[in-house]
Amino acid sequence: MKVSELGEFGLIDLLAKMIADSEGKKPTPQQPVIGIGDDTAAWRSDASIQLATVDTMVQGVHFSLETTTWKELGWKSLAINLSDIAAMGGVPRYALVALALPEDTEAEEVTQLYEGMIELAGRFDVAIIGGNVSRSPVVSITITVLGESLNNEILRRSTAKPGDTIAITGYPGSAAAGLEMLAKKLQFGAETATYLRSAFTRPKPRIAEGQLLVKQGVTTAIDTSDGLLADLRHVCEASGVGARVDVDRLPIHPAVSNNFGERARELALSGGEDYELLFTGSAEIIERVKVEMEYPVAAIGEITSGEPGKISVVDADGNPVEITKTGWEHF
Amino acid sequence: MKVSELGEFGLIDLLAKMIADSEGKKPTPQQPVIGIGDDTAAWRSDASIQLATVDTMVQGVHFSLETTTWKELGWKSLAINLSDIAAMGGVPRYALVALALPEDTEAEEVTQLYEGMIELAGRFDVAIIGGNVSRSPVVSITITVLGESLNNEILRRSTAKPGDTIAITGYPGSAAAGLEMLAKKLQFGAETATYLRSAFTRPKPRIAEGQLLVKQGVTTAIDTSDGLLADLRHVCEASGVGARVDVDRLPIHPAVSNNFGERARELALSGGEDYELLFTGSAEIIERVKVEMEYPVAAIGEITSGEPGKISVVDADGNPVEITKTGWEHF
Repeated sequence: MKVSELGEFGLIDLLAKMIADSEGKKPTPQQPVIGIGDDTAAWRSDASIQLATVDTMVQGVHFSLETTTWKELGWKSLAINLSDIAAMGGVPRYALVALALPEDTEAEEVTQLYEGMIELAGRFDVAIIGGNVSRSPVVSITITVLGESLNNEILRRSTAKPGDTIAITGYPGSAAAGLEMLAKKLQFGAETATYLRSAFTRPKPRIAEGQLLVKQGVTTAIDTSDGLLADLRHVCEASGVGARVDVDRLPIHPAVSNNFGERARELALSGGEDYELLFTGSAEIIERVKVEMEYPVAAIGEITSGEPGKISVVDADGNPVEITKTGWEHF
Repeated sequence: MKVSELGEFGLIDLLAKMIADSEGKKPTPQQPVIGIGDDTAAWRSDASIQLATVDTMVQGVHFSLETTTWKELGWKSLAINLSDIAAMGGVPRYALVALALPEDTEAEEVTQLYEGMIELAGRFDVAIIGGNVSRSPVVSITITVLGESLNNEILRRSTAKPGDTIAITGYPGSAAAGLEMLAKKLQFGAETATYLRSAFTRPKPRIAEGQLLVKQGVTTAIDTSDGLLADLRHVCEASGVGARVDVDRLPIHPAVSNNFGERARELALSGGEDYELLFTGSAEIIERVKVEMEYPVAAIGEITSGEPGKISVVDADGNPVEITKTGWEHF
């Protein structure tokens, strides 16, 4: 059945029921005062700092239904927002979902979208408490995630200091390599293909890792959505500092280094959508983080007192490395 | 200059500067901890109940740039969300703006959009603290508004009781009449044309009125976005009650009754996008509201113990009135 046959309120009822069913199976620890079905959502909060973030995925711009399933799309649309909460070291609590859909969208496709979203929401005890559906010539998904600070502390972009070590979680470039595999229909072994597809279509928001950074005394972080260099530049600009990245210390996943040759480095430096955490701190703090975090962390360079926003990329001998592409812009 | 020439970050800088300038002229009473320029927005709140709502306007579906200016569009995109906070009797605090724009959109058009938004935000001390811009084949504006309850009380849809008087603020049908005038290029006198255009393009969120309802002991309200009957049905369904609307008590504005003849009633009952408050309460409470509220309020019917969600429309003699169209659905 198409959403146009189901109607706006039929679709809302269907989605509200899916959410209620998932809540029945695994209730979120704190229920909202008002969930779906009133003029606004309402909830109680004792945290002193509230967090909110919004991100949109537009068909043909941020995703193609030829390379991404509806379920993956649901996961990813929520994941990119949870990742912003992770980059503040926060606790995600609630989500509002604004869907814009062509009339001939199948209701089944929308329920698959919600399956992906609900699966991820369940992992982080996030309750979907509201939203909106409207007609549109292309599919567009805008999610707002609301969260809270942990212990009244948040990670910012603006607190990096010269001498700080720069570190990153996970394996930068994996998502971009996954996109390239899907878009160009590259053929790899099953294990590689699964890793790369998952890196692009099912990014894992680093919520626990962001909270660990707060606990270990880190104050500066960003999530990598535009690409390592572009996101590092955001931090440098906000902090008024420069940076040096040691290209030979980049933790590149074997699925990327073994299959993308010379381009692996470029993917790691400039490929977007990894949704890992890029952060800075004193050498001691970064060492402690490496010990405490179970997920991989690598030190990849240093914050400098150079020209604000200027990043130099050097090899193991300290020689400058030429970089062409530096990240993703939306226009 | 087109937004594609300005680039994503150039556009964000431009808009952030507009917002900062407006804050400089009239600071919102409570500044956020983190506004535009980090991974999420962050703010402190002492209120025990938090509110959040999201709404999308899509070009060709919710608006046409042939009948609505960019500035009006900015106003309206925010107004429809503030109206949801009004319908909870709440205090709006912050807004996040997710814009999706074609590449050839003029930067000047986007700044006009923001002028409209900033003008309205300023009236209600709402700070724009975050958002997102992305490319899209059509213009789409999704705004999330965050607010707080007043004195820990909120207005709901689910508390209407048989015997309650049904009341409405303002003049239902005015926005739909305005749309008809704009779409069909109807010619009216200046005063009428100005009223009707404004009703459709610059709805006034009834924030003060919603808060007055809370203070006067009203517990049930909704804002009229889908049309009087459709929105009343939402209340009736949520409350498990029926309703009777006395069509001859509908407060129809002269600009509508004098110019739309027989259709004035239909516009008042079924026309959407007025963003007025529809509420119920005991006869005493509604009388008190009528005395205390400076803005027009009219009693238009009664909640009944009839079939849940069923609404009968009757004339002054109690005879049923046939209704054809009952509201706006998005598919």
